[in-house]
Amino acid sequence: MSEDGIASQLLQESVGKIVLVKLKGRRSVKGKIKGFDKQMNIVITEATEVIEQQSNNNDNSEKGKGQEQETQVGDALIRGDNVITIAVL
Amino acid sequence: MSEDGIASQLLQESVGKIVLVKLKGRRSVKGKIKGFDKQMNIVITEATEVIEQQSNNNDNSEKGKGQEQETQVGDALIRGDNVITIAVL
Amino acid sequence: MSEDGIASQLLQESVGKIVLVKLKGRRSVKGKIKGFDKQMNIVITEATEVIEQQSNNNDNSEKGKGQEQETQVGDALIRGDNVITIAVL
Amino acid sequence: MSEDGIASQLLQESVGKIVLVKLKGRRSVKGKIKGFDKQMNIVITEATEVIEQQSNNNDNSEKGKGQEQETQVGDALIRGDNVITIAVL
Amino acid sequence: MSEDGIASQLLQESVGKIVLVKLKGRRSVKGKIKGFDKQMNIVITEATEVIEQQSNNNDNSEKGKGQEQETQVGDALIRGDNVITIAVL
Amino acid sequence: MSEDGIASQLLQESVGKIVLVKLKGRRSVKGKIKGFDKQMNIVITEATEVIEQQSNNNDNSEKGKGQEQETQVGDALIRGDNVITIAVL
Amino acid sequence: MSEDGIASQLLQESVGKIVLVKLKGRRSVKGKIKGFDKQMNIVITEATEVIEQQSNNNDNSEKGKGQEQETQVGDALIRGDNVITIAVL
Repeated sequence: MSEDGIASQLLQESVGKIVLVKLKGRRSVKGKIKGFDKQMNIVITEATEVIEQQSNNNDNSEKGKGQEQETQVGDALIRGDNVITIAVL
Repeated sequence: MSEDGIASQLLQESVGKIVLVKLKGRRSVKGKIKGFDKQMNIVITEATEVIEQQSNNNDNSEKGKGQEQETQVGDALIRGDNVITIAVL
Repeated sequence: MSEDGIASQLLQESVGKIVLVKLKGRRSVKGKIKGFDKQMNIVITEATEVIEQQSNNNDNSEKGKGQEQETQVGDALIRGDNVITIAVL
Repeated sequence: MSEDGIASQLLQESVGKIVLVKLKGRRSVKGKIKGFDKQMNIVITEATEVIEQQSNNNDNSEKGKGQEQETQVGDALIRGDNVITIAVL
Repeated sequence: MSEDGIASQLLQESVGKIVLVKLKGRRSVKGKIKGFDKQMNIVITEATEVIEQQSNNNDNSEKGKGQEQETQVGDALIRGDNVITIAVL
Repeated sequence: MSEDGIASQLLQESVGKIVLVKLKGRRSVKGKIKGFDKQMNIVITEATEVIEQQSNNNDNSEKGKGQEQETQVGDALIRGDNVITIAVL
Repeated sequence: MSEDGIASQLLQESVGKIVLVKLKGRRSVKGKIKGFDKQMNIVITEATEVIEQQSNNNDNSEKGKGQEQETQVGDALIRGDNVITIAVL
């Protein structure tokens, strides 16, 4: 990411705010942005990791959104190349 | 993306307009383009994220387009390497 | 892509013509090439997006080509690294 | 690919010949090589695209090679990073 | 990773501490960070590798979190591009 | 690959010998190495391509190693980034 | 990998020792490290390749660790970008 580009601007403005980072592999991390770098590596404090289980519930044969498994993980580093979207909450 | 190339031109012309960004992993984001950078990272305002659930509905054994799960996410940053297509609505 | 290489030549000759672009994830986009850049990002006008649903139809247990879901998307930008093949129709 | 390396040599010697290009995602393209570039992007003329359907036929529960779906596509550009193997027929 | 960036800072502060490194492919490694480099390759001592088995248990058709298979592996090198998140425990 | 590194040395010593190249996507190619380049692109002569079918045979519900589908392909170019292992037979 | 970094140090200290290299796609290779290069390409002697079959055994619907298929492969080159972890045994 260029240091003065639109992505860096949004992340810079979000430092200290709560964000929801959606990651590849049906994972997401919610917490406060402490900082980020040019590869979009992000340090999140008070982080909660959410892993979406796929459900095959037989009634409507819907392989869809199943239960979510939440884990409190404290301070966490997210490697940038897993990021899909970052939403400012 | 080269700054004067065809992709940058389309994105530049689309700033302020509503776009549908299709992403890897059966996701898409709809909203107004605020800006973008050379890696095709995109900031979208008034964003709605859509995740397509796969359905296995037994009647015609069609593992196809299931229900869509929509989430309003406000301002969102999309990491460019997840983008498949960007359509100007 | 080198600007004078075989790939650029074919794309240059195809500007204004109808092409079928096959993408990763069982997607393809059909429409008129408006332009392209060195990363094989392509702008298509009058574009139709086709997503191939996988079918599990029980009679011959064939997990094969299911129905196709077509969507008219107007002007669209395709990110080059999703391209598998581009056929000039 | 280095321009004088073994890969370029084989491709150079194959120009005008019929080749079978196996691609990621159970696809292959057969046709005459018109040319190639350093990223192993390849232009094929009189091309036939073959997509291998996976079959789940219940008798021997063999999720294996199912029927093949062939499509005549004329002139086609193959993006190099999808190539697995190129065999000179 | 830039050597003075936020990611390097967190890793530097974590040397000698117990971390949980979540990897692509439902794997994770827990242990003490001995060191790391710019590609986020990490050396962990007293490492335990955890592989999450997917379960299809029929009662609630939940293709979710199954049992975990733990293996003591001693000193281990993790290749950086598999890392999703690193949590300091 | 660096030209004087361990990988180049093994490949150089293997020219003219029979090797088994395992590729992503349950494929492998067996044959005589004619040459290779810095991207680990490999030209194999008298090549046989082996595709491993996954089997779901119901008796022990073992989604494991099924039958192998062998094809004689003559001279073949393997694109380096598909290689997992190269064993000298 | 930087030549004097933590990853190179661990690999250098492991030359001549038995290691277990876990690879993408449920594969692993066990054997003696002969050498490595900056891309983490590794040459292993007296190598055994292990492919983990997924099992769907019906009793507890556990899509988990199935049987392992071992193959003695002698000297083998592992392409670095498939490596997940390297454990010194």
